[in-house]
Amino acid sequence: MYTKTILTLAFTASSLLASSLMTDAKNAGLIPIPTDKQELLKLTDNPKNPITAEKIELGKKLYFDPRLSKSGFISCNSCHNLSEGGDDGIPAAIGHKWTANPHHLNSPTVYNSVFFSSQFWDGRDPHLEAQAQGPMQAAPEMAALPEHVEAVVASMPEYVAEFKGAYGKDVKITFEKVADTIATFERTLVTPSAFDDYLNGDENALTKAQKDGLKTFIDKGCATCHNGIALGGEMNAFNITGEYKYQNVGDFKGDANGMVKVPTLRNITQTAPYYHNGQIWDLKDAIIEMGRIQLGASINDKEAASIEEFLKALDGRKADVVLPQLPVSTSKTPKPDIN
Amino acid sequence: MYTKTILTLAFTASSLLASSLMTDAKNAGLIPIPTDKQELLKLTDNPKNPITAEKIELGKKLYFDPRLSKSGFISCNSCHNLSEGGDDGIPAAIGHKWTANPHHLNSPTVYNSVFFSSQFWDGRDPHLEAQAQGPMQAAPEMAALPEHVEAVVASMPEYVAEFKGAYGKDVKITFEKVADTIATFERTLVTPSAFDDYLNGDENALTKAQKDGLKTFIDKGCATCHNGIALGGEMNAFNITGEYKYQNVGDFKGDANGMVKVPTLRNITQTAPYYHNGQIWDLKDAIIEMGRIQLGASINDKEAASIEEFLKALDGRKADVVLPQLPVSTSKTPKPDIN
Repeated sequence: MYTKTILTLAFTASSLLASSLMTDAKNAGLIPIPTDKQELLKLTDNPKNPITAEKIELGKKLYFDPRLSKSGFISCNSCHNLSEGGDDGIPAAIGHKWTANPHHLNSPTVYNSVFFSSQFWDGRDPHLEAQAQGPMQAAPEMAALPEHVEAVVASMPEYVAEFKGAYGKDVKITFEKVADTIATFERTLVTPSAFDDYLNGDENALTKAQKDGLKTFIDKGCATCHNGIALGGEMNAFNITGEYKYQNVGDFKGDANGMVKVPTLRNITQTAPYYHNGQIWDLKDAIIEMGRIQLGASINDKEAASIEEFLKALDGRKADVVLPQLPVSTSKTPKPDIN
Repeated sequence: MYTKTILTLAFTASSLLASSLMTDAKNAGLIPIPTDKQELLKLTDNPKNPITAEKIELGKKLYFDPRLSKSGFISCNSCHNLSEGGDDGIPAAIGHKWTANPHHLNSPTVYNSVFFSSQFWDGRDPHLEAQAQGPMQAAPEMAALPEHVEAVVASMPEYVAEFKGAYGKDVKITFEKVADTIATFERTLVTPSAFDDYLNGDENALTKAQKDGLKTFIDKGCATCHNGIALGGEMNAFNITGEYKYQNVGDFKGDANGMVKVPTLRNITQTAPYYHNGQIWDLKDAIIEMGRIQLGASINDKEAASIEEFLKALDGRKADVVLPQLPVSTSKTPKPDIN
């Protein structure tokens, strides 16, 4: 009887504690990826560019096709590498003619980018469809003219057939539609994690250390900016004109207010180096520096390690991607130009 | 009775004709990829680097890992792209710092390279294990020192564990072993085609036009050089010092005798541009030019089109490759250096 009471009390206390943490997390604006497929689709779909199986498959091919670039050597996957946490692991992106990003900007991960309310480091575009048009054209990235992209795609009967399958037989293959299909594929790159399992009700999905880290994360105020489903991507809040000790790298000025978009923390252990200019390699250092300049909070090593433990719970489960076999170039396909 | 006789005669004649072509093909040195897995393994295995499931899986990750390069941006798959027929579709390979291959050499396909008796355009290495060491180190390719490659791999516990799983717990991770595992993965990249089905006994595997093309291919003497399982890769026979009208591109001199390796014809429709220096985009042009300078044979447009029809029967069935998820870098992982 005595033992049973103790156990019951312990169990109740543990449940209360856990439930309380779960409630705190939700109150802090942290939102799980839903397990229900229809619910998820509501969050990932774009009514102006509805997700269809045909567009996903076509967009996946285009995502992996280097021929969309001027050189024929760089694909979306070159910098947003699905094998490497959805980015390239390099401080500043490299593109056409080995040009480093002129503003020394770091390639953000494509995984879960569907949950961001804005795209690019200055948050200038709300949708993946608009985002996908950027790197294809940017001179230091894929360096392609829209007409090049259209001509490449239209030159291959297999692509043309797939466009007809996706948009109807009278489809006109435009640069915008190419970007739309790529965005459709990207909308599927969602990686549910242990943290989602936890927020979706599985108390045991997080380890004790991860729960402690979550508590520290909330207590320190990290969720003030890193919130929503992506734990980021919802606002421009990083004050680039502030005391950021690495600000002297690159000439990027942020948005009109000198602010930089808050990046997602999902799969953050896989996407070093950190910050918009990729100047911090160590995740603990990044946590401490963020506390200092963004929150005016002193985060000591132990607290940073605890938060890092929580962040590991954001490593997501990635669906298998079978490498596509690309259509064969024809005599009409524009030739690669590496210059 | 009359009808039956006619039909029987027609059938017999057709069988004889077909069988005769099949015999001619075999007599010309054309060999199918065997359907029996054990027989295939005998042809693809290297007793000094035996194929194991552990090495295939590890080698696949390394094949896709750009961190083996100095820049962290170029992987084996960048130039031997499994989505693009196993090469890059560019005349001369691009590598570190956007350097085009200094000899203007075209990236050969990795598919079926296990069947070549020699590797590289000058045929200088007999084995894929030795070949894999080349591009990782070459300054205009991945530009990595062996020590860099070893340090990258040894810095990640997941890779270390996989090396132990593949070679035993006392394994020393060497540059050579990294190349060995990559070669093991490459040894599995075999693509059986309709032509193999035909040579393996299925008379109906080729269309009439493809059979006609095969006959032309043999009659014109193409199989003199393009023979063996890979229809190439068996000898250095292309006389670079001869009348090749595109010889003025690049300073490549071939082997000691001024000869260049005969490339495989498998998946040839997917690996334009053609020749060691990637100067011909159109397959028919390539056929005609080869006849002229190698065989002293005049191949007219119709004959070239017929041979091209046969070559389409060499488009192979590629096993699904699920994109690997690469281990996460650690603080010990050498940083990418794009300079």
